[in-house]
Amino acid sequence: MSTVHLSSTTAPVNIAVVKYWGKRDPTLNLPTNSSISVTLSQDDLRAWTTASCSQDFPEDRMWLNGEERSTTDDKRLLACLKELRSLRTRVEQEDGTLPKLSGMGLHIASENNFPTAAGLASSAAGFAALVRAVADLYKLPSSRTELSRIARQGSGSACRSLFGGYVAWEMGTREDGSDSQAVQVAEADHWPTMKACILVASAQKKDVSSTSGMQSTTKTSLLFRERIERVVPDRMARMTEAIRARDFSTFAELTMRDSNGFHAVCLDTYPPIFYMNDVSRAVVRLVEHINGQAGETVCAYTYDAGPNTVIYYLRENEARVLSFVKGAVSATTRGADGLSEQTAASVPDVLAQTISAGVSRVILTKIGGGPEKTERSVLGPDGFPRK
Amino acid sequence: MSTVHLSSTTAPVNIAVVKYWGKRDPTLNLPTNSSISVTLSQDDLRAWTTASCSQDFPEDRMWLNGEERSTTDDKRLLACLKELRSLRTRVEQEDGTLPKLSGMGLHIASENNFPTAAGLASSAAGFAALVRAVADLYKLPSSRTELSRIARQGSGSACRSLFGGYVAWEMGTREDGSDSQAVQVAEADHWPTMKACILVASAQKKDVSSTSGMQSTTKTSLLFRERIERVVPDRMARMTEAIRARDFSTFAELTMRDSNGFHAVCLDTYPPIFYMNDVSRAVVRLVEHINGQAGETVCAYTYDAGPNTVIYYLRENEARVLSFVKGAVSATTRGADGLSEQTAASVPDVLAQTISAGVSRVILTKIGGGPEKTERSVLGPDGFPRK
Repeated sequence: MSTVHLSSTTAPVNIAVVKYWGKRDPTLNLPTNSSISVTLSQDDLRAWTTASCSQDFPEDRMWLNGEERSTTDDKRLLACLKELRSLRTRVEQEDGTLPKLSGMGLHIASENNFPTAAGLASSAAGFAALVRAVADLYKLPSSRTELSRIARQGSGSACRSLFGGYVAWEMGTREDGSDSQAVQVAEADHWPTMKACILVASAQKKDVSSTSGMQSTTKTSLLFRERIERVVPDRMARMTEAIRARDFSTFAELTMRDSNGFHAVCLDTYPPIFYMNDVSRAVVRLVEHINGQAGETVCAYTYDAGPNTVIYYLRENEARVLSFVKGAVSATTRGADGLSEQTAASVPDVLAQTISAGVSRVILTKIGGGPEKTERSVLGPDGFPRK
Repeated sequence: MSTVHLSSTTAPVNIAVVKYWGKRDPTLNLPTNSSISVTLSQDDLRAWTTASCSQDFPEDRMWLNGEERSTTDDKRLLACLKELRSLRTRVEQEDGTLPKLSGMGLHIASENNFPTAAGLASSAAGFAALVRAVADLYKLPSSRTELSRIARQGSGSACRSLFGGYVAWEMGTREDGSDSQAVQVAEADHWPTMKACILVASAQKKDVSSTSGMQSTTKTSLLFRERIERVVPDRMARMTEAIRARDFSTFAELTMRDSNGFHAVCLDTYPPIFYMNDVSRAVVRLVEHINGQAGETVCAYTYDAGPNTVIYYLRENEARVLSFVKGAVSATTRGADGLSEQTAASVPDVLAQTISAGVSRVILTKIGGGPEKTERSVLGPDGFPRK
């Protein structure tokens, strides 16, 4: 039996505060605007991926959460693997003593520590982990930014999950996508007190997939051009500045405005796309209520392509923010025990009724770092899933 | 006892297909964009108003649906009455033999034939009826367009209810509002087969009043300028053309796009304004389902500042449109008996569940004419409400 080479990594979820919506090149996943995100802690949300290869593997195979997936139909996966193999080939050409891993079949297995169905950006973490794991397996000298260009082709926002902290995806201008990549705006340590509370909505049926939704918005929304040409460039500059200055109030307002503006162009799409529902809207009002009671902006909501809310706040305001969350969710909501230290604050009945009925799970987390190499392997030493 | 002069009129509701949203002058109700509407039949929805005056009336008094309302705090009402009195004064100056009605107190009473709480543009019908009734009482020679400029100061969209059929409100450019007025695009007879089905939502709590909502959008939405400067002017031209050409498919698409675009700028407002709810969104999907099943655009949704849907369709498609509506609403919904001739068509469960639970009333109506003088009086011959 030939040597089985193995490398394992974990990679984080990121939640954008200036949203990616719209592709100028759907194949290369080149966006119509730059975006910026916060990387969440892998203690709570992460993809864990092992890549392995061996002369004995005749083909590429992949397992997601224990289920084998076909690799042959997945153009995005194939694009990533092709780029990674090509980089490995170059390494092998430069040093003829290295094993010819680029010619071997790859076995890749990935597991999430959170329910995939919860609609929590699992593809971003998944593709970041895959690219990182194969790059480590291949001992590529590529920088994280270089790898981000590969992960981007798997899932646009995956490029941001190659970094921890505060991360920008620069849209770039080149047709081949060689300058459409992630860069770190600031390490998690720069502003380490950022925390996030995720309210997972019970009804998870997605209206329209992100990919087809973006295409539809790009083609049909008459307000979209204004967003990408004027609104987002200005907001990117302000958001970067707010993060550098650790200015939560500005960070929060820009985050909420961008979420609203993104869902506005979804609604302006024809036919319209709806991701927020009555529960999402009640949580928007809850956040406004919390800020109103605090007399200052202590928390911000943001919504991706689904009804879940991510609420950002600083550690120093945790008690007051979470006391209202506790007042709004049901005691039987999963994750609600994480709120046990808080005294429930009073929340208007109409909000509490909608939120307690419509939120199925609460996840408390914080800002975190980028992908981490690990000795723990998803695959067995033979490069096959463990029985 | 002095002579009591009386004049009575009815006035219709209008539902915009290119929406009015944004005031460039809040006092004069001058809009940031032109708009266009369809006047609905007074058989189903109308305000009925009597204006009276007498030397014996020391002050202006007003009754709405039997309840007296203070006239002294209502700046919009006062602005209308002041303009009407000033026109009457001119008439009296030109013909000294006429009674000096302009100096007498006015008694005005108005009743709707539909629940005011249903959020069905009652203020538009109400102010149009009031202006028309007082103009008739005063025997003013003013044209309907001239009166529309007065009604506009009461409630912006009221100016469109001075006409039947298809009506444009031209935003105008003058600072004094003298060219911000309604004109008829086409008589109801030009395209008489237009019908409307109104799905009144159970939960009628309005998010934000139209007046404050418009102000907030104008000030804070970054997408709003694109709407008023480019999107609406182009859409007004196309909509006018579609009405003239009786092109339902274009009329429908423009109507749906404009409703979506209006709610998009509401969502882009900071803090965001939500008028549509999960029931509204299910009805959007129902309309898409009906059009999909028909293989052509046979109906269009539109939403004002609330969750009610108005569905426009042509008489020739009534059976197929209403069969789906019947399939979606509950048999116990008020007005559902109006659907009795239809066979209920099958509607996806997820839509039918939301719609049947969330729609409290169905109103079937059609395009109609403008205000009509009537001998029936809301007030008694003494100019006071009947006991």
